[in-house]
Amino acid sequence: MANGKKIAVVGATGAVGQTTLKLLKQRNFPVRDLRAFASARSAGKKVKFGDDEVTVEPLGADSFKGIELALFSAGSEQSREFAPLAVKSGALVIDKSNAFRMDPAVPLVVPEINGAAARSHRGIVACPNCTTIVTVMPLKPLHDAGKLRRVIATSFQAVSGAGVNGVAALREESLMWARGEKITARHFQHQIAFNLIPHIDKFTEGGYTGEEIKLVNEIRKILELPDLAISPTTVRVPVFTAHSISVNAETERKVSVAAARAAFDRFAGLRVVDDPMHNRYPMPLDAEGQDDCLVGRIREDLSCPNAINFWVSGDQLRKGAALNGIQIAELLN
Amino acid sequence: MANGKKIAVVGATGAVGQTTLKLLKQRNFPVRDLRAFASARSAGKKVKFGDDEVTVEPLGADSFKGIELALFSAGSEQSREFAPLAVKSGALVIDKSNAFRMDPAVPLVVPEINGAAARSHRGIVACPNCTTIVTVMPLKPLHDAGKLRRVIATSFQAVSGAGVNGVAALREESLMWARGEKITARHFQHQIAFNLIPHIDKFTEGGYTGEEIKLVNEIRKILELPDLAISPTTVRVPVFTAHSISVNAETERKVSVAAARAAFDRFAGLRVVDDPMHNRYPMPLDAEGQDDCLVGRIREDLSCPNAINFWVSGDQLRKGAALNGIQIAELLN
Repeated sequence: MANGKKIAVVGATGAVGQTTLKLLKQRNFPVRDLRAFASARSAGKKVKFGDDEVTVEPLGADSFKGIELALFSAGSEQSREFAPLAVKSGALVIDKSNAFRMDPAVPLVVPEINGAAARSHRGIVACPNCTTIVTVMPLKPLHDAGKLRRVIATSFQAVSGAGVNGVAALREESLMWARGEKITARHFQHQIAFNLIPHIDKFTEGGYTGEEIKLVNEIRKILELPDLAISPTTVRVPVFTAHSISVNAETERKVSVAAARAAFDRFAGLRVVDDPMHNRYPMPLDAEGQDDCLVGRIREDLSCPNAINFWVSGDQLRKGAALNGIQIAELLN
Repeated sequence: MANGKKIAVVGATGAVGQTTLKLLKQRNFPVRDLRAFASARSAGKKVKFGDDEVTVEPLGADSFKGIELALFSAGSEQSREFAPLAVKSGALVIDKSNAFRMDPAVPLVVPEINGAAARSHRGIVACPNCTTIVTVMPLKPLHDAGKLRRVIATSFQAVSGAGVNGVAALREESLMWARGEKITARHFQHQIAFNLIPHIDKFTEGGYTGEEIKLVNEIRKILELPDLAISPTTVRVPVFTAHSISVNAETERKVSVAAARAAFDRFAGLRVVDDPMHNRYPMPLDAEGQDDCLVGRIREDLSCPNAINFWVSGDQLRKGAALNGIQIAELLN
């Protein structure tokens, strides 16, 4: 496209990078020139971009010359080092790492929720953590309906959240099992096949993991509710691609199940799947490959007058990462 | 054993029945004579009891003649029909089905919690649902420490909870995947391999499942707290044998993390596994084959002054079913 942008995808060989390349094509994002970057280890590899093959280049100080849009999904260290260089070169950086999310000067954006905040960027727009995005999508319309007071969230997180190595671990461990071999844990702290690991990211003071702290801080920033009470538990499960979250949400004003369902239904990016009598509710297998987050099991919390329970599943690589990043780029295009 | 009891295991070919036979031996339960019953379909099969083989008999009106102890794990219908006949024959019935749990005349017993209640039986003692047992084990010492006010529980339930067919479904579906075949769902409403199904037992009014309602009613009965506020979510996960539950528990009086840990630690049947800095926390793979329920990830809930979060894993077939039943029998022996 003659009028398209010169784009860099940083972390192009990773799980999110691969999905980014696929979605740029699927969404007909105007691309004039596409360059793919990754670690020196991956340099020289080829990645697919539609029918084309693009040779992966190693990141360097001069990588961003002429680049107008840089989509980073290479990890926090790489973002900290190279995103400022990309900005200096004149690029808009959309960063999917944890590097800048809580920087007060950097907007943290889910377009359906706080798209306007993206416009205040000074070169970098941060994309929230995958679990945050899938959790906050239904929280926003519920907050608008009744003002959130307290959120208790328990996540069931897919291995793709740990990147291609996470996916390979579940795959290889499951194949070892199928061959009747003793399973040796790959990548994760413990075996993930047929197991659950209540440990994502590093443990911090107070017994919470980094993943849990991110969920709290990022939801507060996105919703502009710095004191919102949130109690998080995050768990890795043997599922490949979509994250699911069991949410208990209390509001200042009562929101009936019918009103919550209507609010979810109207909200762009959410799809209500809630017909239990016909065995219809969100499941990670159904959320995989979908742009929308699926929300269901919407029911009154019988233990608290102003609370509801619900269950949401969203593709961790799409809305949880690559799609959200491209949506930010579309918004600012 | 000359002084042992004449015992009937009803549902002997099922997952819980098989574990019951194994544990009767392992625990040296005094057995003089053991008879194995199952549906007509399974009659004539052999089951192992230590080094012996026992021929499975079909259930009939005269099955319980001379039986002193009948351990039922054959499903609610069978229990409703045959448990009263067993009682009439003079047997003590320990029933693992849902048939009598909420009957005010039948004690619902977890020996470590309300063993004394078992003594008031009129022939039948009910064993709680597996998820209830694993959840209520840490709730009891916490209640004793600070008086429970509200419990929010999200379960991650193994396929063994659905019996041998549930186990076969995860196994067969995972093997189809390993062979590169299209997976056709077995037994569960949907594919369970690499998926999550937020649907256990039938849906009821209000959008809760039978499994969720059981969790509420049974915890209230066991703890003798008929009004305890409990908010349940139950989810089937691709794990073979142990259930895990993420629990948020609020108490009237503040219970510090240290006090909760000490209370859990002292409680028979619980083992604290909570050393996150060394990657030690409860996981279903570690709980499998253990008599104790494992509790960890104990941390203050930053969203509520008097609440803590924790995570518990317990072998669904042992403490969740067969072991709890045998413990009741030992108590009354």
